[in-house]
Amino acid sequence: MIPSEIPEHGDHWKSIMEDFKRCILPGITHWQSPNFHAFYPSQTSYSSIVGETLAAGLGVVGFSWICSPACTELEVIMMNWLGQLLNLPKCFLNCDDGNGGGIIQGSASESIFVAVLVAREQAVRRLKVEHPELTEAEIRGRMVAYTSDQSNSAVEKSGILGAIKMRLLPANDDCVLRGSTLIKAVEEDKANGLFPVIMVATLGTTGTCAYDKLEEIGPYCNENNIWLHIDAAYAGASFCLPEYAWIKKGLEAADSLNFNLHKWLFVNFDCCAMWFKDANRITDAFSVDRIYLQHKYQGQSKAPDYRHWQIQLGRRFRSLKVWVTLKTMGAEKIRELIRFHISLAQKLEAYARADDRFEVTSSTLALVCFRLKGEDALSKQLLENITKRKKIYMIPATFQGKFILRFMIGGIDPQPADIDYAWNEIKTQTDVLLGVDENGNDVTVKDIIKQEMFEKEKPIGMITESLNGLVLANEKAK
Amino acid sequence: MIPSEIPEHGDHWKSIMEDFKRCILPGITHWQSPNFHAFYPSQTSYSSIVGETLAAGLGVVGFSWICSPACTELEVIMMNWLGQLLNLPKCFLNCDDGNGGGIIQGSASESIFVAVLVAREQAVRRLKVEHPELTEAEIRGRMVAYTSDQSNSAVEKSGILGAIKMRLLPANDDCVLRGSTLIKAVEEDKANGLFPVIMVATLGTTGTCAYDKLEEIGPYCNENNIWLHIDAAYAGASFCLPEYAWIKKGLEAADSLNFNLHKWLFVNFDCCAMWFKDANRITDAFSVDRIYLQHKYQGQSKAPDYRHWQIQLGRRFRSLKVWVTLKTMGAEKIRELIRFHISLAQKLEAYARADDRFEVTSSTLALVCFRLKGEDALSKQLLENITKRKKIYMIPATFQGKFILRFMIGGIDPQPADIDYAWNEIKTQTDVLLGVDENGNDVTVKDIIKQEMFEKEKPIGMITESLNGLVLANEKAK
Repeated sequence: MIPSEIPEHGDHWKSIMEDFKRCILPGITHWQSPNFHAFYPSQTSYSSIVGETLAAGLGVVGFSWICSPACTELEVIMMNWLGQLLNLPKCFLNCDDGNGGGIIQGSASESIFVAVLVAREQAVRRLKVEHPELTEAEIRGRMVAYTSDQSNSAVEKSGILGAIKMRLLPANDDCVLRGSTLIKAVEEDKANGLFPVIMVATLGTTGTCAYDKLEEIGPYCNENNIWLHIDAAYAGASFCLPEYAWIKKGLEAADSLNFNLHKWLFVNFDCCAMWFKDANRITDAFSVDRIYLQHKYQGQSKAPDYRHWQIQLGRRFRSLKVWVTLKTMGAEKIRELIRFHISLAQKLEAYARADDRFEVTSSTLALVCFRLKGEDALSKQLLENITKRKKIYMIPATFQGKFILRFMIGGIDPQPADIDYAWNEIKTQTDVLLGVDENGNDVTVKDIIKQEMFEKEKPIGMITESLNGLVLANEKAK
Repeated sequence: MIPSEIPEHGDHWKSIMEDFKRCILPGITHWQSPNFHAFYPSQTSYSSIVGETLAAGLGVVGFSWICSPACTELEVIMMNWLGQLLNLPKCFLNCDDGNGGGIIQGSASESIFVAVLVAREQAVRRLKVEHPELTEAEIRGRMVAYTSDQSNSAVEKSGILGAIKMRLLPANDDCVLRGSTLIKAVEEDKANGLFPVIMVATLGTTGTCAYDKLEEIGPYCNENNIWLHIDAAYAGASFCLPEYAWIKKGLEAADSLNFNLHKWLFVNFDCCAMWFKDANRITDAFSVDRIYLQHKYQGQSKAPDYRHWQIQLGRRFRSLKVWVTLKTMGAEKIRELIRFHISLAQKLEAYARADDRFEVTSSTLALVCFRLKGEDALSKQLLENITKRKKIYMIPATFQGKFILRFMIGGIDPQPADIDYAWNEIKTQTDVLLGVDENGNDVTVKDIIKQEMFEKEKPIGMITESLNGLVLANEKAK
């Protein structure tokens, strides 16, 4: 549909918009549709889009304060606003007395990678002093990092990119990583002469939104010089609700954490908030020519040169869309909307529990995991049929070795009617698949499933068709 | 100006826009102003802003093909369009028979870092076979990378982040890195048992836009298994002009290269094109659990899962703004505009050359470097006075040990009158500083320099005020 050669002459605006509708829109997976229940949400808002457009219009590149003072200063203030909204321990905020500070990164993967790199570099420095008999290469070669086998694939990838062995520790049956599992692994590694460096814990795992046991993991990490990073990419939004304060219990033990505003705080992708308890550590680890610049660092968490806090040099003015969104909505409206989305998930959960053919395997925040009772093959076929019809979009996961369907509240403005629509689709397709409805009556309608196959072009599509939601969880966990 | 507490209730749109004008705009360094002559440009265009807004409105997250097919497919096509526009060797394009392929990364720093990581991982694999007597840690500890001392600070940082020693090789007096310098360093390192892994060459260095001698460097790298990455962040735009083809001579030796559309191709930040000669190498190095997924990789450069080509998992729909921009302008208009910007720089150069008080130290593409004849102190004072007045914005660099002023064509739509305006400012401030005008007549006007000091708030501003343009070049080069 798009010519393979760049046009020599410019086109009229009108024809570009027509092409946009003709060539682009039909090829989109509509993340903002209320019928999007796959992955985790990427809920945007109109105010965020306005903020993004303002930033694009200003066109500033904010790698240091002088490059656009408002770009750095607004980000500092927004990270404090967010910290207040999420009831974070004060030690992470740069409005506190300590060295805490926040930054907007592009994604959870970047934040996790940054945490791994900072932990690695500060451990190298410490271990060189503690082990003068070892070369730096030997020290680096003995380093080991930890995470749960339920954590996002980005954690495993951060180990590959950071050249540090990342151990995927087995979570319990409920997908939760316990302190005892970590302690066992660390003691084992220590006995073998390895150096534990960082633990990446997850609040809200990719598959089922499980929460690692911070209260067990945190104190042990603190006592053993293991950097604790917390990936709360999705579940972090719930920190703003007092009734979900239990999720973040033990958070104060973390050295760093991240939370994606582009998942569930109505700011469009990309926008990931990351906080450090001691922001000096990142500048120590990352800055080029540390000695030369050292005198400039004092108090840098108050007036950060954010280029030292991230991988890239250049920076977009992302705090602008955060500011416009938070200011338009206010904290009250945000809490209200998050509670509303949770209630929508509970509505779907109630439908599933009321239908004897289903079992709900877990339900937390705005994610419901369920399956058809019996063999995995049934749930697999159900999901395949639903996906082919393209009315709603869900992805699978595994729970206690079983194939499950994930139903996530997504889209820019989901409403109760959308849940009815989704459940009707799930129910009807189940009727057809099983040949009986929820009351056990035979279903004779044969062609409810219209074969609206999504015909993929070759070779594009051939390769990725075997990929589905599972790729987001650690590959080894598959 | 911005309250330190998040508002509990939402605000009216009108008041937000008023606050935007009151609190944000006065704190902006206006990169899109035609009076912005600092750093390198970040020239946006109205069509790109429209593309960015469309992408924000769609709100898709394109980490794999199925997440939004058009997001991946349009990017593949746009990278081919760009390759054609820039007259790149066909081997880099995925429309060619080989394994070439392109991706949009966020920034040059990311691209360089990705290249360093890929080179590192593939070298580890090769060296493990060649040196079975060494442990992996020993191999990693002996790796070494190379770049010029004129390359961007991002190159040195990529060494720190990638835990690989990055040698900053001395460029010649003209800021150009010669092949002989690299060869000497590599042979020296090899003799000491080190493993040369990657050379990051620059076409258009940060300080003076010098071009490393690819024709000397490239063949040597190819023969010695040294990955060659080329950072053409700014100068890459000139590849579209046949009269500047000499700049990219030897490019075909590269394993990867990057070029920022957000510098000089009218696409707003962030948008960095990166190409690989063999894209399979990046998926081999980066994918989690390589063995498990191996069967999916065949021909992946034709239908890439871009999440394997980058650090992050999530991806914005950046190709949309590239498409809207290229389609609106067409190749002809782009070449015309780039030539026009070069002519604007030549206009400034002509002014400087006609004034005996100045010497032009270099001039290439849309960057003119010049200084006041005599002591550095004069040029330093001149720049300081000009910066304080805030009429135009330039930053300094060094050339042959001397302090120079960089005059860069920037802003969304610079015109000849803006050059007259800038030269008038430079000339007048020189008159005042030296006490004589260009004809040697005494200048008696005493208070041309109004002390419009930029009063910085404390503590923000205190720390970064000593930073200036030089921080963008390698710290050690200072």
